[in-house]
Parts: sequence; C-alpha cells; structure tokens
Amino acid sequence: MNQERITLSHGSGGKLMADLIGNVFLNCFGNKILNRLDDAAKLQIGRAQVAFTTDSYTVKPLFFPGGDIGKLAICGTLNDLAVMGAQPIAISASFIIEDGFLIDNLKRIVNSMARTAKECRVDIVTGDTKVVGKGECDGIFITTSGIGVVQKDMNVSANNAKTGDSVIISGELAEHGTSILNARENLGLKPDIKSDVTSVYPLIKSCLSLAKYIHVMRDPTRGGLVAVLNEIAKQSKVGIKIREENIPVKKEVKAACEILGLDYLNMANEGRVVFIVDSRMAGKILAKLQKNGSGKKARIIGRVIKEQEVALETKLGTSRLLPLLEGEALPRIC
Amino acid sequence: MNQERITLSHGSGGKLMADLIGNVFLNCFGNKILNRLDDAAKLQIGRAQVAFTTDSYTVKPLFFPGGDIGKLAICGTLNDLAVMGAQPIAISASFIIEDGFLIDNLKRIVNSMARTAKECRVDIVTGDTKVVGKGECDGIFITTSGIGVVQKDMNVSANNAKTGDSVIISGELAEHGTSILNARENLGLKPDIKSDVTSVYPLIKSCLSLAKYIHVMRDPTRGGLVAVLNEIAKQSKVGIKIREENIPVKKEVKAACEILGLDYLNMANEGRVVFIVDSRMAGKILAKLQKNGSGKKARIIGRVIKEQEVALETKLGTSRLLPLLEGEALPRIC
Repeated sequence: MNQERITLSHGSGGKLMADLIGNVFLNCFGNKILNRLDDAAKLQIGRAQVAFTTDSYTVKPLFFPGGDIGKLAICGTLNDLAVMGAQPIAISASFIIEDGFLIDNLKRIVNSMARTAKECRVDIVTGDTKVVGKGECDGIFITTSGIGVVQKDMNVSANNAKTGDSVIISGELAEHGTSILNARENLGLKPDIKSDVTSVYPLIKSCLSLAKYIHVMRDPTRGGLVAVLNEIAKQSKVGIKIREENIPVKKEVKAACEILGLDYLNMANEGRVVFIVDSRMAGKILAKLQKNGSGKKARIIGRVIKEQEVALETKLGTSRLLPLLEGEALPRIC
Repeated sequence: MNQERITLSHGSGGKLMADLIGNVFLNCFGNKILNRLDDAAKLQIGRAQVAFTTDSYTVKPLFFPGGDIGKLAICGTLNDLAVMGAQPIAISASFIIEDGFLIDNLKRIVNSMARTAKECRVDIVTGDTKVVGKGECDGIFITTSGIGVVQKDMNVSANNAKTGDSVIISGELAEHGTSILNARENLGLKPDIKSDVTSVYPLIKSCLSLAKYIHVMRDPTRGGLVAVLNEIAKQSKVGIKIREENIPVKKEVKAACEILGLDYLNMANEGRVVFIVDSRMAGKILAKLQKNGSGKKARIIGRVIKEQEVALETKLGTSRLLPLLEGEALPRIC
C-alpha cells in the first residue's frame, strides 16, 4: 500500500489542494458539472436554473471578532450561491458534535445561524446531528448546503474571463484570515481585527441590471485573492495582472500580516467578491458596488491579459508573479 | 453559564435527540418546512416539487462487511430523498479529513462513492474538502446533501399516517447496526453479518403507479424500527401496533443482538423502508415490493391505530409498549 498521507496543506486552498481535487475527486467523480469547478453547481430543473453548493466549517476558534462558526457557515454557503448569481432559497445544516460540548455554546452558535439566515431571508429547511466520542472531533463541525435560483442574465463561471476584462474587488482584503489567526494564537494585535464575514448577495443584487456584463464572480476565501485569480486564469486559459496601489487593504491588517510573515494577498476573506467584467462597463458596476454597505471600498484592481500568468505590478513599478502557493499550513481558517 | 453538555445519547436517534432537536434546532430555526421533520424538505421551484436533504456520516469502522463510509454516504442521502418519493438528480459531498489520513484509503472511499452514485444514476456535482489537525477528527467524516424531484402523486410525510392504514417493512431488520458493532468491537460473530446498505429508490420506483395510496415512507436508520414508528405516531397523532411473528429478521442477526443485550427493533438499517399505506392496497403494494431485489422479504407487519402508542404483539400473544429509548450509547453507527 502507498503510504502517502493527507497533510494540512491539502486543505489550504493552494496547489496541493488543487492536485488532490484533480487526482482524487475529479478523477473518480468527474462529470460535466463538477469539472467546471465553480463555487456552486448549476442544474436545470424545469425552467429554473438552480445553483447547489456545500461547504464544511471547521474554524478554530469557534467564536472570533466579527463572527462565529455559525455565522460563517450560513454566509459562506450563501456566498457560494451568490457568486453564481443565485438568490438563495434554502439552506441545510448538518452538525458533528463532540461528546461533552457545552449545550449553551451550541445554542449560541445555532442562534447566530438563525439570526444570519433571517437577515439573509433564507430558511434552514433540513438538517442532521451526529455526536462523536471525546477526542473524535474538536468541539463542533458544521456542514451547510444551499440551493438558489440563478437570476436573469447571470451567466458567470470561472471559465468565462476574457482578455481585456477588468478585475474588481468589492472591499478590503485579508480581514477574516488575520482575525482568526489573531484570535487563535492570542497575538494580541490591536486594534482587534474583525472578520469581514458577511453575506455578499445584497452587493451582487445591486448589479443585477448589469448582469450580462459580469463574466466571473468569485469569493476569495481560503488561499485569498491569489488562489482565486490563479483558479480563474487556469479555468479561463488567460492571465491576470493587478496593481498593488489599487488593492484595498487596511493598514493595520497589512502590517499584521507582515509581522506574521504572511502576504495579505493569500489571506482568507469571507465577505468579499472578485468580479471579472466587461471593461466598458467596469466603471458603472463599480459605482453600483460602492453605493452598497459592504462595497464602499470596491476598486478596479487590474485586468485580464493574454499571457497565462497572474502578476502584480508593485508600487515601485516592478512586476512579480503571484503563483498558487504549494499550500501553507493555515488550517481551520474557515 | 449552564454546564449541561452534549452526550453520545444526544446522537443516537432516541428521546434525548428528539428533545435536542425540539429545544435547540426547531426553537431557533423553526419554519413551516423544517417543523415537519420529514427526511427531506420539500420546496416548490417553478412547477417542480424539489426534495432537499443532508446527512453527516461518522461511521466507525470506515470499512465494514457490506459497505464503507462512502457507499453509506451516497445511499443514506439518496434514501432520504427516496422516502419523500423523490428521484435523485444531484449529490454534494463534503469531506473533513484528519492530517495523516492515508490517501489510498481516501481513494478507496471516493471510488466507492463514485461506483454507488453511478449505480444509482446520479452525479456528484459539487463538494468541499477541509483538513484538520491530528486528533481533531477521527480519520474522515463525510457530509452529503441531495436534491431530487418528487414524483407524480407522491405526497408522503411522517404527518400523513391514518387510523386503519397498514404498516409494511421492505426487508429484514437490524443488519446494518449489527454488522457495524460486530466489526467495530471485533465480536467475531459468524457468519459475518453484512450491512444492508443500499439505495431504496428502485424499490420505491416499483410502486410509483400506486403512489397515491402510500401515506408515509421512512427509512429506519438510527434508532431502528422503534424510533421511526414513534416518530410517525407522534407526527401523525396516531398509534401503531405491530406483530412480532410478522417481522422479518435473520435468525443469526436476532441472536447476535440478544448476545449484545440489544433489541433488533432498535438497531439501525440502511436499506429498508417502512411504508404506511391505505390498507385496501397493502396487498398490491406488497406484491410489487416482493418482485424487487431488496424487497423480496417485505412483509405487512402491523396497522395504524387510534390510541397514541406504539406496541408489539408478541408471539406469546401478549402486548408490550415500544417507547422511544432515552438514547442508547450506540454512537457512530452511520
């Protein structure tokens, strides 16, 4: 028997994870829909295009500045629907809980899920609960799945970026990942950095009238902006060039990442969207985003190029490649 | 802070689990669909009635006679759709994997899922992978969700049993639970008891022409037949009386349960269905089931009564109540 083993890097959104998905999951499960590697599958049911997605949440700690595993589990799955252009209609929630977990903490998490779902106008319609022994899981893991209806004129996919398109990011980067690390490692970075975890559907809804000019939407979670840009470039067989000076990021967040020896461009976000749009309409789409609560800091950060590489133009005018990382050991960030 | 904690019994399909679902999940999430406590939610999308369900699988050991966690994760979720009368159209699969897990074992599990999905003519269209540290989960947990289209004339729900209805079980009981215990505890019971894990949709499909006479379908998983009958009785505000001599069970399975001090009526099944049907059509439905591979041993085992209790008429002619157990410690059976 081959003694090769799963490592933390297989779960961190980098190259090892992409290889695992290719070699194991696509190799065995492969079909037209899954092979697209979009954030949600698109299914035709009658006349409706239905988006369907799932994610497991293992974040540590369970409660962090700006959110908790419950809020994350709802927003994360709704966002995977949203970036397919789908309005959510129902959510499922499945819990794996460790023997000995405090029921008050479970209630706190479940209340947070209920509150978030209500704010997002979606019902949790089905679920499951499993309890495992002490030491067989770390507290609680939650898996949510979601169903949504793809909105009119929305035809986005990581496969649809075109040379000449503009790249927009909807807000400041790296706040979720940095907040989790700060809380988990008791780094004591001040001011407390809050996770950006939020539902992005309202933001996307504000652009619905311009839907046909939006080619790709993607939420830069694990692996951050760099992972998402590399995935889009690979799937669409194009390259992407972004300008450092245009990228929105809070000074204290960038500084915190530097102290930790991490690049804010690789850090997880849970309330941001990367848009790849027809460049003629980029200004109009940007204006719509900036009118929205979580889109105030939206910026055009770059463009799609022909050469198949992802690159950064630095503030010094130099250029450097932004390859997909092998897989950094930042486990349990979401 | 209240120091009450989750225990293994909260996950075993008994009374403590029902209380947890009521006090925590329904209390926070409650809505018309979830409150029905059916195996899958029913959603109207355009003209289609769509069933949506989720389950987490934490079975131990991962490989057991008759199946493995992968086959279980596909069949279990397809069966939750099937017992709502829905033909499956898509499955999602989310993996939580422990650092150090053998990639060959992952491939074995994923291949089993792919094979089972193919046999059941359904695609795995979306998924997720998280890796957690050593000791933070026990090997691998899998959560699958499923979407299906409810078939014509199918209007089943645990809320729909009526006094006078007949109760049918589609095959021999207790094989999944007994096989898992035998494998996990190295009991060495011979002959090897195989899990009954299988997709029940073909069985249900064979009865589609009589769909309007079927009031309830339910797969008796955790908590076994007794849990399911109690749930149906409670949801439908009726009682159920079954006859011991009519209940199909292999001699060696019943004996194994007795050795373990367990009642086969409380043991998990993963390829059986309880049907509650219009008694005038019970014979015809039974005949259809018996023509089908996994329905050969189907039997009419009892009837729905007015008095709100679940009871067993023993072979000796006496009668005893079959209450929902508080919650036996049979964790990780599915």
